[in-house]
Amino acid sequence: MPRFAGIATFARLPRLDEVGRADIAVVGIPFDGGVSYRPGARFGPAHVREASRLLRPYNPAQDVHPFGAQQVADAGDIAVNPFDLSEAVAEIEAGAHALGQDVDRIVAIGGDHTIALPLLRAVHAQHGPVAVLHFDAHLDTWDTYFGQPITHGTPFRRASEEGLIDQTASMHVGIRGPLYSKEDLRDDARLGFAVVTSEDLEEEGVAAAIARIRARVGDAPLYISIDIDVLDPAHAPGTGTPEAGGLTSRELLRILRALADLRIVGADVVEVSPAYDHAQLTAVAASHVVYELLSAMAPRTASEEQA
Amino acid sequence: MPRFAGIATFARLPRLDEVGRADIAVVGIPFDGGVSYRPGARFGPAHVREASRLLRPYNPAQDVHPFGAQQVADAGDIAVNPFDLSEAVAEIEAGAHALGQDVDRIVAIGGDHTIALPLLRAVHAQHGPVAVLHFDAHLDTWDTYFGQPITHGTPFRRASEEGLIDQTASMHVGIRGPLYSKEDLRDDARLGFAVVTSEDLEEEGVAAAIARIRARVGDAPLYISIDIDVLDPAHAPGTGTPEAGGLTSRELLRILRALADLRIVGADVVEVSPAYDHAQLTAVAASHVVYELLSAMAPRTASEEQA
Amino acid sequence: MPRFAGIATFARLPRLDEVGRADIAVVGIPFDGGVSYRPGARFGPAHVREASRLLRPYNPAQDVHPFGAQQVADAGDIAVNPFDLSEAVAEIEAGAHALGQDVDRIVAIGGDHTIALPLLRAVHAQHGPVAVLHFDAHLDTWDTYFGQPITHGTPFRRASEEGLIDQTASMHVGIRGPLYSKEDLRDDARLGFAVVTSEDLEEEGVAAAIARIRARVGDAPLYISIDIDVLDPAHAPGTGTPEAGGLTSRELLRILRALADLRIVGADVVEVSPAYDHAQLTAVAASHVVYELLSAMAPRTASEEQA
Amino acid sequence: MPRFAGIATFARLPRLDEVGRADIAVVGIPFDGGVSYRPGARFGPAHVREASRLLRPYNPAQDVHPFGAQQVADAGDIAVNPFDLSEAVAEIEAGAHALGQDVDRIVAIGGDHTIALPLLRAVHAQHGPVAVLHFDAHLDTWDTYFGQPITHGTPFRRASEEGLIDQTASMHVGIRGPLYSKEDLRDDARLGFAVVTSEDLEEEGVAAAIARIRARVGDAPLYISIDIDVLDPAHAPGTGTPEAGGLTSRELLRILRALADLRIVGADVVEVSPAYDHAQLTAVAASHVVYELLSAMAPRTASEEQA
Amino acid sequence: MPRFAGIATFARLPRLDEVGRADIAVVGIPFDGGVSYRPGARFGPAHVREASRLLRPYNPAQDVHPFGAQQVADAGDIAVNPFDLSEAVAEIEAGAHALGQDVDRIVAIGGDHTIALPLLRAVHAQHGPVAVLHFDAHLDTWDTYFGQPITHGTPFRRASEEGLIDQTASMHVGIRGPLYSKEDLRDDARLGFAVVTSEDLEEEGVAAAIARIRARVGDAPLYISIDIDVLDPAHAPGTGTPEAGGLTSRELLRILRALADLRIVGADVVEVSPAYDHAQLTAVAASHVVYELLSAMAPRTASEEQA
Amino acid sequence: MPRFAGIATFARLPRLDEVGRADIAVVGIPFDGGVSYRPGARFGPAHVREASRLLRPYNPAQDVHPFGAQQVADAGDIAVNPFDLSEAVAEIEAGAHALGQDVDRIVAIGGDHTIALPLLRAVHAQHGPVAVLHFDAHLDTWDTYFGQPITHGTPFRRASEEGLIDQTASMHVGIRGPLYSKEDLRDDARLGFAVVTSEDLEEEGVAAAIARIRARVGDAPLYISIDIDVLDPAHAPGTGTPEAGGLTSRELLRILRALADLRIVGADVVEVSPAYDHAQLTAVAASHVVYELLSAMAPRTASEEQA
Repeated sequence: MPRFAGIATFARLPRLDEVGRADIAVVGIPFDGGVSYRPGARFGPAHVREASRLLRPYNPAQDVHPFGAQQVADAGDIAVNPFDLSEAVAEIEAGAHALGQDVDRIVAIGGDHTIALPLLRAVHAQHGPVAVLHFDAHLDTWDTYFGQPITHGTPFRRASEEGLIDQTASMHVGIRGPLYSKEDLRDDARLGFAVVTSEDLEEEGVAAAIARIRARVGDAPLYISIDIDVLDPAHAPGTGTPEAGGLTSRELLRILRALADLRIVGADVVEVSPAYDHAQLTAVAASHVVYELLSAMAPRTASEEQA
Repeated sequence: MPRFAGIATFARLPRLDEVGRADIAVVGIPFDGGVSYRPGARFGPAHVREASRLLRPYNPAQDVHPFGAQQVADAGDIAVNPFDLSEAVAEIEAGAHALGQDVDRIVAIGGDHTIALPLLRAVHAQHGPVAVLHFDAHLDTWDTYFGQPITHGTPFRRASEEGLIDQTASMHVGIRGPLYSKEDLRDDARLGFAVVTSEDLEEEGVAAAIARIRARVGDAPLYISIDIDVLDPAHAPGTGTPEAGGLTSRELLRILRALADLRIVGADVVEVSPAYDHAQLTAVAASHVVYELLSAMAPRTASEEQA
Repeated sequence: MPRFAGIATFARLPRLDEVGRADIAVVGIPFDGGVSYRPGARFGPAHVREASRLLRPYNPAQDVHPFGAQQVADAGDIAVNPFDLSEAVAEIEAGAHALGQDVDRIVAIGGDHTIALPLLRAVHAQHGPVAVLHFDAHLDTWDTYFGQPITHGTPFRRASEEGLIDQTASMHVGIRGPLYSKEDLRDDARLGFAVVTSEDLEEEGVAAAIARIRARVGDAPLYISIDIDVLDPAHAPGTGTPEAGGLTSRELLRILRALADLRIVGADVVEVSPAYDHAQLTAVAASHVVYELLSAMAPRTASEEQA
Repeated sequence: MPRFAGIATFARLPRLDEVGRADIAVVGIPFDGGVSYRPGARFGPAHVREASRLLRPYNPAQDVHPFGAQQVADAGDIAVNPFDLSEAVAEIEAGAHALGQDVDRIVAIGGDHTIALPLLRAVHAQHGPVAVLHFDAHLDTWDTYFGQPITHGTPFRRASEEGLIDQTASMHVGIRGPLYSKEDLRDDARLGFAVVTSEDLEEEGVAAAIARIRARVGDAPLYISIDIDVLDPAHAPGTGTPEAGGLTSRELLRILRALADLRIVGADVVEVSPAYDHAQLTAVAASHVVYELLSAMAPRTASEEQA
Repeated sequence: MPRFAGIATFARLPRLDEVGRADIAVVGIPFDGGVSYRPGARFGPAHVREASRLLRPYNPAQDVHPFGAQQVADAGDIAVNPFDLSEAVAEIEAGAHALGQDVDRIVAIGGDHTIALPLLRAVHAQHGPVAVLHFDAHLDTWDTYFGQPITHGTPFRRASEEGLIDQTASMHVGIRGPLYSKEDLRDDARLGFAVVTSEDLEEEGVAAAIARIRARVGDAPLYISIDIDVLDPAHAPGTGTPEAGGLTSRELLRILRALADLRIVGADVVEVSPAYDHAQLTAVAASHVVYELLSAMAPRTASEEQA
Repeated sequence: MPRFAGIATFARLPRLDEVGRADIAVVGIPFDGGVSYRPGARFGPAHVREASRLLRPYNPAQDVHPFGAQQVADAGDIAVNPFDLSEAVAEIEAGAHALGQDVDRIVAIGGDHTIALPLLRAVHAQHGPVAVLHFDAHLDTWDTYFGQPITHGTPFRRASEEGLIDQTASMHVGIRGPLYSKEDLRDDARLGFAVVTSEDLEEEGVAAAIARIRARVGDAPLYISIDIDVLDPAHAPGTGTPEAGGLTSRELLRILRALADLRIVGADVVEVSPAYDHAQLTAVAASHVVYELLSAMAPRTASEEQA
């Protein structure tokens, strides 16, 4: 079947209901009610699925067959209330728990970054506090916005306050752009995050960033949360709060490939907003990001060579 | 000053703070938290303001100077909580009341159709029950969605239940597309709405529709609520729930011009979603719609001829 | 589940494999190897599925529940060779035959207009010669192009030559734009087609066109083939050979609704080319066209009222 | 050769230098220095040429072979100074005169509407005062803008003042949208123009408009000037000063076809601004408009039947 | 107020008329009459204002509150004649002088690069000859085009000839792409410019470029002129004369940050052409560029820490 | 003549028929029948020609006048059958041979990558086996797809099998993204290709890649084949099979400039698909790529200095 044919699942993988259970589920969470600027990430899962049709089974950059070395399946979307933030967050957490009955690990496609909080709650229930490796232009450790404690700008503050993260092993990568005040950075550090800014990447290079990341994370169980706006708007125009001066997709993919031996327990890729995308640029980037994550999560065995 | 220069207000009108008070305020309500499909109408007011730069002072189709025969001003935007529907609705109602201290009538630019409910509450406080003339592809008299009683699909059911509308004089124009069930139509009639469908317009023509509208509305105080999706997607691509088979902008403008002698007490133009717009098509249409409304609301006096 | 959530099937219908068999299958045929100008209709089925998420179960214009009165299912796509026209045509015919084991009737989403030929072959095998009601800007009865007898410009000549169509009951609607020579029209008439041009529609009106169509088709078994370029480019920019001066979507939907009591045995909607679409304009129109076809094909029984 | 292949000339016609002389030259005038709002029409000729590849040799709506009944050639573009309005206008007039050595009549593709003035000067030199049939959303009989007497808003005032037009036979069609004052209309009438507004077309229909046009023009030598913004923005998004409520392309083409027996001595199609176009919508419409003009200008002889 | 709400000023700053006077005025100059290729930069100021809504008050990359450490205000636009280059240039110079009564320094948003000449005249009147640090793909030291001495390709030749610039301290950064002849480079050097090409940046790196810039500029009063086309078209598609092989936005921002201790007396950011922009890519980049300039111009005092 | 005026040839070069013969012909090959995913490259030649209007005669990066040091002409397009792959391939080979009568070398603009095979056949007929330096995201040495041995994914396998290439001197640059299996890489090596991946470029830098390329190619006659998708989708959105993580246009141009002293006997630039392009990003990049190729192919003589 040509790649452009058929009803789209992520990377043309089987649906979870076809295979019953899986090592990893790719699941969409089409919620964008926590967005403070451009909305639209509710259409992110469908958009990324369409763009993922081009993915092929062997990843030479990691020398692995991510779909052969492990069972990966598309679990569809977790349906959530588009009108009520609190209820939506509860539904996502419940959906992740339910999905956890059938799969070992989850890679979620957002949706906005709000979804990281309930996902981390579900991961914490299984693994205890985890290192969070957070790729983003923004800290996402703000406190409240319009009095609302849970939005796409706050998941990692709430997660830290709730004890969901390992404060000695968590890190932001790609941070850039204006903040509200210097206090933002102090708060962020206090909440347990180290930072590799986009400026650091420009000045010190990618290899140095990788070294800092690996040193920080160590062998902690690791949750990777990727806001697609960590990429420069040139690479990811289809997102809600674009900031100039970001990473190239090549840099991001390179960093992800360097994490293959870490203990990844879950991941999300969020903030793909299709109405602002062009020629699927953002969705192609996001689908490759998911693919590298799945590859990094794959067990390294001789068997994959025969796949 | 060239039309493309200067900080944009609607039709390059003075700001309300410059003139102190006005007969009519054009005010933006950048809220889209009640949207069930494509969001983005929060950027509607800014987008319509930019497209309104081309509007000139004399309206030959109504033979009136809408900005000369009455004081019209741009009141800026009513700021509302993007995360909490109930609070947002309260803020809009409060904002409309506050604005009512300085102006006689309001023409609001949305934002999604949720805003019609608090605006009708404010209008009702001043005028009692009003005829609602509602241009839309959709009935917007649904009951709840995800348990939520107030969304962009329900304002006119709530308004009818609250006694805000004159059930003998209200009407939908341009309705088309699939419904959930036949019950939708029965409910709608029971709530006090007559209907001119888009199909009626196609088969019977615009003149017949105008006659039906005028007969229905009579001399009741009239609130006009225009969802820009009443236009065909060809004329208004930038909207959230497009339905094929709609009105042309020429038909809509013609109908509005035929309402100039009715007792218009307020109006809104909603659901312009810029991320889906192209070449300002939708915003140009919306700005002309607002302009015809303002023209229809203008007093007819000899003085305007000198303007 | 919100309409934007979940893996897309047409109108969120069940997949055929979920329901086993169906009265009507909606099936994609992502083939565009017969295109003479802008390609890209291979992505048509996926694009129309995404835009069809907004369709709801009750059609007030026809007073019918198209998915309640009959079992409709999404049969996915027929996979075809993108490089070999002859093989592709054979695969489509075989695919239609195979699908015919599980369903009574097929509504195909193209793909380019080439697919009408193998679909008509399959329909003919079941029903004998059928009336073809063909909505298009172009005659599609050309002979060869670059020596190739089967392209998107020739299906109805080949079908006529093969005896697949009822030459006394077939008709084009919406024809417009330049031809190669006057001979094109003579050939076309000889092949068994009457014509309602777009100019006729402009001058005589839609009601007259409907009367001519119904008089021509009569009670013959009817295959409806809709090239989306029958719509004006304003209504369907996303297509391969646009011609100015076409139908509005409202006119096309009105005509289709007037065909509900005819004996429709199959249909296709073709030439949606997503790369040229904007804000899903073309796909929204196409999905409504499919919806009206499915509604027209639904049996009229009391039972649907309870659906 | 496939239609998409080869270096683009209008409708794949020969270049004028290939044929030496011609009955009609299609010539581009890529100048937009007279634009008061969105510029970009300087790219109009190239854009229309690309979109004209689909035009075929026989026009069934007029039953004529426009390229067979007369020699039509693409004369390329008249190069003009992009920085100096006065010099540009002089260059266009000189270019038209020079071209007149090799061709009988000119159909110009703009560029902005400023170009109509020098073209009318050239036409006047050959034919004396001509009836101007002017399709536009705007009157284009304003006086000055920023002190500048020659812009895209003034060509027909200047032409009238210079005695270039027949004040008893000239007419605007499609006028709509706001004006500066009522005086605009009085001035316009005084300058010799009758008006069919877009509102007239909506209310009275196309046939009535055609009758009024034909009665007004009579047998005067006729210059047809078509601002593509006479079309509704849905049909012509790619233009500089869009006004909602315009004509459909079908209506415009129908009117043009009804002028085939008039004495057309020249024509222009202006204000196609590609940067605002989508899927070549505006350029396809413009190329069909040029094609209908060329068809209307073709002599009706038996010979064309053999072409 | 949400960032998307309210009438747009740059970075939601107060208008100059609200604050009376300011240390720095951001002012739009919507003029593009000097453009040799794609026009449209007249809409640049409005477009950049809209995209600047996301800017927040603290700049961590420079550790400064640019709006707290100094009074910055939006002075609106300088209105200029769109039809007459000479008059426009005079109006811009006069406008800059007038603005200089109320503010110490100006950061202008274009508009095309023509505006740099009158701005430099105004700067020179205040400061004498200044070092010009010019970021651009093009030299902009050409002599005439179509006989016109002042266009967007000539401001720095004219400025050098008029003695406005310090010929020992001026420099181009980011130059690339084809020239008319080798003489262009010789002329340019003679006019007082050193060059860091985009190729130099690729081969030697950003740090080396910064060192060369700082060595060249020294402590001369510095005017920074940034043509957004210094960025690669991937980062700034919305511009008039794109050249492949440019800077990333991250590189440009890094260089600007390294200039914070220089004596910046004025700046402009030009050639943002919205009709070619997508998802505000170019405008987001431009607004960040303006923000880094304002940050670099801010005094470093303890007080900003409390802002 | 302004750059935006006139009928477009590549870089506004003379047509081959104007100059009779040339050192190098730029020729379009508008064929995309070998595409496995997004089609549309058939419009590539026209699109690149339009974007090439900005190219000027002197290339400072190579210090050469590519159009002065040698006669370069635009040979128009080779017309090929859009429906039959085998016939098309034969026509391209024949067209290249025919063109070889009038020119020494060919730089082809695709079209899809299928065209490289017939072009290599023609080159081989003249030069024997050549080194192929292939810039691409993909290996293009797959075997068959849908049973078809000649597609855009197979030209270099076929070329190697046919003995057209020098297996000791050929190389891919920019390879990235998923493969079908590890066997793809083994096959590729066996067919005679060394590889510089995009990952290598990221990690080792461009200078290292240039060194590897020069070492591999040596002084073999060299054919350069550039799939525009070697660029990152941010730099080349308008292509058929985008892969994240690619080269910047600056990197690609730098590499090409480093090849100026090699023995280039022919070249192609393929897979520009305009329907997915934005603001001519991809076409501008492609036109600069062609320009650098032509510059690299130009003889270095004193004479060019006077051009």
